Amino acid sequence: MTTIAVDAMGGDIGLDVTVPAAAAFLRQHPETRLILTGDEARLDAALSAHADVRPRITLVHAAQVVEMDESPQNALKNKKQSSMRLAIEQVKSGAAQAAVSAGNTGALMATARFVLKTLPGIDRPAIAKFLPAANGHLTLVLDLGANTDCTPEQLFQFAVMGSELFGALHPERGGARVGLLNIGTEAIKGTEAVRETFALLQNSRLNFIGNIEGNEIFGGAVDVVVADGFVGNIVLKTIEGAVKFIGGEIKAEFNRSPLTKLGGIAALPALKGFKQRLDPRRFNGAIFLGLRGIVVKSHGGTDATGFAYALEEALHEAKADSLNKIQAGIARRLNETAATEAAA
Amino acid sequence: MTTIAVDAMGGDIGLDVTVPAAAAFLRQHPETRLILTGDEARLDAALSAHADVRPRITLVHAAQVVEMDESPQNALKNKKQSSMRLAIEQVKSGAAQAAVSAGNTGALMATARFVLKTLPGIDRPAIAKFLPAANGHLTLVLDLGANTDCTPEQLFQFAVMGSELFGALHPERGGARVGLLNIGTEAIKGTEAVRETFALLQNSRLNFIGNIEGNEIFGGAVDVVVADGFVGNIVLKTIEGAVKFIGGEIKAEFNRSPLTKLGGIAALPALKGFKQRLDPRRFNGAIFLGLRGIVVKSHGGTDATGFAYALEEALHEAKADSLNKIQAGIARRLNETAATEAAA
Repeated sequence: MTTIAVDAMGGDIGLDVTVPAAAAFLRQHPETRLILTGDEARLDAALSAHADVRPRITLVHAAQVVEMDESPQNALKNKKQSSMRLAIEQVKSGAAQAAVSAGNTGALMATARFVLKTLPGIDRPAIAKFLPAANGHLTLVLDLGANTDCTPEQLFQFAVMGSELFGALHPERGGARVGLLNIGTEAIKGTEAVRETFALLQNSRLNFIGNIEGNEIFGGAVDVVVADGFVGNIVLKTIEGAVKFIGGEIKAEFNRSPLTKLGGIAALPALKGFKQRLDPRRFNGAIFLGLRGIVVKSHGGTDATGFAYALEEALHEAKADSLNKIQAGIARRLNETAATEAAA
Repeated sequence: MTTIAVDAMGGDIGLDVTVPAAAAFLRQHPETRLILTGDEARLDAALSAHADVRPRITLVHAAQVVEMDESPQNALKNKKQSSMRLAIEQVKSGAAQAAVSAGNTGALMATARFVLKTLPGIDRPAIAKFLPAANGHLTLVLDLGANTDCTPEQLFQFAVMGSELFGALHPERGGARVGLLNIGTEAIKGTEAVRETFALLQNSRLNFIGNIEGNEIFGGAVDVVVADGFVGNIVLKTIEGAVKFIGGEIKAEFNRSPLTKLGGIAALPALKGFKQRLDPRRFNGAIFLGLRGIVVKSHGGTDATGFAYALEEALHEAKADSLNKIQAGIARRLNETAATEAAA
């Protein structure tokens, strides 16, 4: 039995999204329970429509809500009874194996870091996400915005965490191929921090395949792409924008004339399939990595379908025992590095 | 009459691409002439198939070729008779108003900088490119890889150059809206260099619309997107990869079953139109900005159609008198900044 804590008030819409998503998720996964944090009376009322799964839901009343534009400092200091904070505390206490929130990213990261603390050997948590690539491949990219400036050591830690997470979630792949996002394949390319990271990665026992360029994110030849949070966030948003733009261009072409409109009707099954393939809701669920607990961030503006995918992501992580594997992996890699340095 | 110098040996393929492109370009633009630099005998033979435009082509013999993987240092030192160098020297001498090469980017930038020098007030040249955006809009993005690390002053110079170039090439738009590529809209977001650039831009008389995120490149609400060459290059490659990946996904969906295949046939006109809209060859031609001469870099692996687009880009720039406008713009902006500082 896996229990996931859900910040039921988080996100642009709140419980009109989180409650139907929670109910659908429980129907899909009979072996799970949920703890919903938020306004107990409102949650109880909203749950009356989901009597079949109600016995597997526990409510934890939260008198406060972290606003979507609230500063992390303010949330930490003045929102100790927020639905976000209480959801994370369920993980801290062991009542839940993971927490999911669609609340504001900065506040969620600050709260998660404060309540759960970072893993031994990790300076700063990172945000990671699986992105679709060729042939159904999924590529894990991190950091997506938690850390604007990163030292080579921190980037190396991201590589270790990403590699262990990928291995835990996709054991069938026999280990992760790690790439460093850069502007060319040669070791001399990139910023100073990236060049030093290249050296650290090359001297490690990670399966480091070298520098990769932006286009290779989609090629399927790399499993974990490492970047600082500034570059990673810009890349993520650029991809989101490109997908939306290209979708719009396709639509415009099919609307161009009666002939192309007819063609569009005939092409509907394929176009629908294509839309589903790249539906951003299917890739909802950013993973906070490096904390002593599993935290998944849902997109703030997603709907119940999207939020349910974030719950799936959290369940997948919890069931794969990813946290222990990451922790063991960090300890092992740090020992290897120490051994290499001692031998040198 | 506009004359463009063409490095006829540059690129992965060389004159089998450049010569047909040159001939097609001349047929399209009766008011132009071309100077082709390269192996005179081979060029003369290749041009026998294009007798109609031959009178508008001048050959300049070049005994050397810069290899695609040659270091900029080596090209500068040992390839003084290369087709690339001689093409740029045509601009320096005034024989041509622009130079186009599909040769290696590093060597081309180093050579162009050495031969032409940078414009007064500009520390380092940048690479800029127009990318497609919503509603047929074109967004100019720079720097795309010439400068890995940039100071706020250099990023500000990129903004000035980009703004002036956009204004020169698209006078109908009444001035460029400049955005700074960042990870959020607030002034406090981003790296130190980016935050300082934000302040410089906000205190300038440029039409600065603030920070923009990656997705906004495609929105049509910004004309010039400023980033350092590390971020810009990764963004450019990511977009190229995303376009290719999404194209592949569409293809895969139409190939999924006999039904979707039939739909694909009916949808052919629209799919063809879509493919043309985003054909990377149409956006070929990266602009070197900040030099005392117009230099356009074609993609090394493009075909004759793509190379002809790079020639179009150079012609557009030359006819718009972009160089003088950029130079005047830089002088004006620097005076404004000096005046602001004096007033402060």
